Amino acid sequence: METTKFVLTENEMPRQWYNLNADFPKPMLPPLGPDGKPLAPEQLAPVFPMNLIEQEVSTDRWIDIPEEVLRMYAIYRPSPLHRARALEQALGTPARIYYKNESVNPAGSHKPNTAIPQAYFNKVFGIKKITTETGAGQWGCALALACSLLKMECKVYMVRISFEQKPFRRLMMETWGAKCIPSPSPETNSGRKFLSDFPDAPGSLGMAISEAVEEAVSDSTGKTRYSLGSVLNHVMLHQTIIGLEAKKQLALAGEKKVDRIIGCVGGGSNFAGISFPFALDLINGADMEIIPVEPSSCPTMTRSPFSYDFGDTAEMTPLLPMHSLGHMFMPPPIHAGGLRYHGVSPMISHGINLGLFKPRSYDQLDCYEAAVQFARTEGIIPAPETSHAIAGAIDEARKAKEEGKERVILFNFSGHGLMDLRGYDLYFRGELVNYPLPEEEFKKSIAVLNKLPKPAKY
Amino acid sequence: METTKFVLTENEMPRQWYNLNADFPKPMLPPLGPDGKPLAPEQLAPVFPMNLIEQEVSTDRWIDIPEEVLRMYAIYRPSPLHRARALEQALGTPARIYYKNESVNPAGSHKPNTAIPQAYFNKVFGIKKITTETGAGQWGCALALACSLLKMECKVYMVRISFEQKPFRRLMMETWGAKCIPSPSPETNSGRKFLSDFPDAPGSLGMAISEAVEEAVSDSTGKTRYSLGSVLNHVMLHQTIIGLEAKKQLALAGEKKVDRIIGCVGGGSNFAGISFPFALDLINGADMEIIPVEPSSCPTMTRSPFSYDFGDTAEMTPLLPMHSLGHMFMPPPIHAGGLRYHGVSPMISHGINLGLFKPRSYDQLDCYEAAVQFARTEGIIPAPETSHAIAGAIDEARKAKEEGKERVILFNFSGHGLMDLRGYDLYFRGELVNYPLPEEEFKKSIAVLNKLPKPAKY
Repeated sequence: METTKFVLTENEMPRQWYNLNADFPKPMLPPLGPDGKPLAPEQLAPVFPMNLIEQEVSTDRWIDIPEEVLRMYAIYRPSPLHRARALEQALGTPARIYYKNESVNPAGSHKPNTAIPQAYFNKVFGIKKITTETGAGQWGCALALACSLLKMECKVYMVRISFEQKPFRRLMMETWGAKCIPSPSPETNSGRKFLSDFPDAPGSLGMAISEAVEEAVSDSTGKTRYSLGSVLNHVMLHQTIIGLEAKKQLALAGEKKVDRIIGCVGGGSNFAGISFPFALDLINGADMEIIPVEPSSCPTMTRSPFSYDFGDTAEMTPLLPMHSLGHMFMPPPIHAGGLRYHGVSPMISHGINLGLFKPRSYDQLDCYEAAVQFARTEGIIPAPETSHAIAGAIDEARKAKEEGKERVILFNFSGHGLMDLRGYDLYFRGELVNYPLPEEEFKKSIAVLNKLPKPAKY
Repeated sequence: METTKFVLTENEMPRQWYNLNADFPKPMLPPLGPDGKPLAPEQLAPVFPMNLIEQEVSTDRWIDIPEEVLRMYAIYRPSPLHRARALEQALGTPARIYYKNESVNPAGSHKPNTAIPQAYFNKVFGIKKITTETGAGQWGCALALACSLLKMECKVYMVRISFEQKPFRRLMMETWGAKCIPSPSPETNSGRKFLSDFPDAPGSLGMAISEAVEEAVSDSTGKTRYSLGSVLNHVMLHQTIIGLEAKKQLALAGEKKVDRIIGCVGGGSNFAGISFPFALDLINGADMEIIPVEPSSCPTMTRSPFSYDFGDTAEMTPLLPMHSLGHMFMPPPIHAGGLRYHGVSPMISHGINLGLFKPRSYDQLDCYEAAVQFARTEGIIPAPETSHAIAGAIDEARKAKEEGKERVILFNFSGHGLMDLRGYDLYFRGELVNYPLPEEEFKKSIAVLNKLPKPAKY
């Protein structure tokens, strides 16, 4: 029988994460502190535990995955690699399409790959409680799961409008024992100030970050830290287990090379996870294209300048060197909530600047069309974010058909859509629309970046 | 490293289903037709395709799984077997607890294990369209998925009150291309009659069955059939892939014997799936207990008589020999919607009568307590139905601790709870209650059975 799924045993799971910072042809620019000078690692110590800060700045190629993390990973890892034979057939393509299925875990997306080690390293460092923010709730769920497994306290500031509109993700967090409260909240100074100025505020990710960071740094016992689910180097690092497993599985499938690697990008962590282990091959001269995909209504990689920018609206974070829509940008209300972030991981930005990654954008309707075709052939209902990677893969499979090429396409199936079905409802009713980039607002938002320090030329 | 998960490759998937009807120490009683006489297989031909009817009445021990079914199974099978080390530790038990994880598939429960072969055998028989009913939506989703993979039409009559209260399962069905309509509907004679008598009817499973069967048998082209997701022999047969895989995986785990096998029971299919392949060992003298678990508010196995009864409220089905609460019984509104059915599979009923299975019941609150403990140790949020199996497994692990025995406990994790989080919400708020069996109504409901033909004594 033709094989359609390639699995690894628990013992075949990779024992180290791969750090692309060891192999970039030139080093990344440093983040900057409030004084405009390169940030010293110690300056992050009130926010993150030192063992994670060490990973953040490390240029070691391989970093060991602790045994206890491997054991927790084993709840759902290694994740399966599928050959999308039914989709290939539907497209009539000579391409061989593979997808790494990160939806197969209790939280439904790739996010636990970093939530688990982050919680673990915090615990090892003596931390008892972790705070974070969440928008739609994917990241909050992953961290709640991780803290539950490690018997740590977890507090999630959830953007108020999502808290009210998406009760199910909140219920998942509570089932894992986390405390989830709507932001802005009366529990922090920044929350109280915001509430007194705007009592009916729907909240924002920027606001929620401010609250979560404030709670972490103001705990006088020093036993609380903050955790971020994307963007930062150590988050990208942890996600590389995806691509490292995929390499082994492609070998099991008898594939000697990969021609296209595709992932969707919000902050960038699932894309980093699938692609960074292959980027090393690209740096070493392999003939492949690595394609990060974003929504055309939030074109962080395809239309935004490379700048120093804040990670949050409230300007509390260090300045990061990244492609950014500007931290004041208000993204259109696309259903792929995880792809609405204004910036993209500095590592991915660096890779784009070096020509390693070739970003691309798709409209919302094209992504839903791809998602429905995938669900009806391969059987799994994709998250709205994941649909962007599928749109990219289908495009590449069509090109391969036009060009008569037997290409090998690998994409990351970052999460299932079972908690995000409203977009499908609108799509079937013909009520889903595309959102063009709001050009005027984009110009204004970008203009703000000119007031910030400029990165050196590449 | 200690292994916590045991996986099989696609090529190690079992190639045959196991039929317990080949090995029962005495044969089952036959179903009866409307005339009170044993039903001839041909009498079912307007409802089911002949190839499935052959499986329904077969006494062959092994029945081949077609290659195409294996290929579709490979989307999510073989499913993982987990050792519940974190739960064991929390309980301080010397027992080794294993669970078969049937939540890892696109529909989220074990139901596709029979939906896929049922759709396949219908297609092979020349059928173009399959009708069914669904309550909470688990079964409707599974059949929608299967029909999508096989490019067949699928129409699901969903109990109106669930249709309105649970839009997400309907959206899953629509994403897979099925037509899902609220029952009673204006599309069938029985639906129209019911609607004109009771315009505001919330609907019932019995009503929805009547509509789905009517649509199937009244298609003049003969290209439509009906499909049932539990109770019948061929459904139990298809689910045995669960237990057959678990046997191989327990061997990988180094276990030479199993002491307890546990599954939750509504119609009985997931319990049959995990336990039937082991029941053969029990028949051959193995020292083990096989424990089907049900809600104490719907005590089909633990308190109801073994009778001939209809499968539906409208008395359209053949009479089946089974333990039954009576087909007019209105179950209390427990959250485990899939365990509210009035009857239990004739094969399981037969096994109980023969002393092979030792049924047990639990209250709703105890099940939620078990579910939360499981979610916070093993990480996966259980479906309300599945929580009954967990309650049983935890009880057995505690007994093993009290008795100082190193027992091996296997239970079936039949589905995740991501689409059924409301019960958890009520539980955390302290608003969830136990429902005692409504004794007066139960007496009346049982009394109806006395008017039906009596099964022969065992």
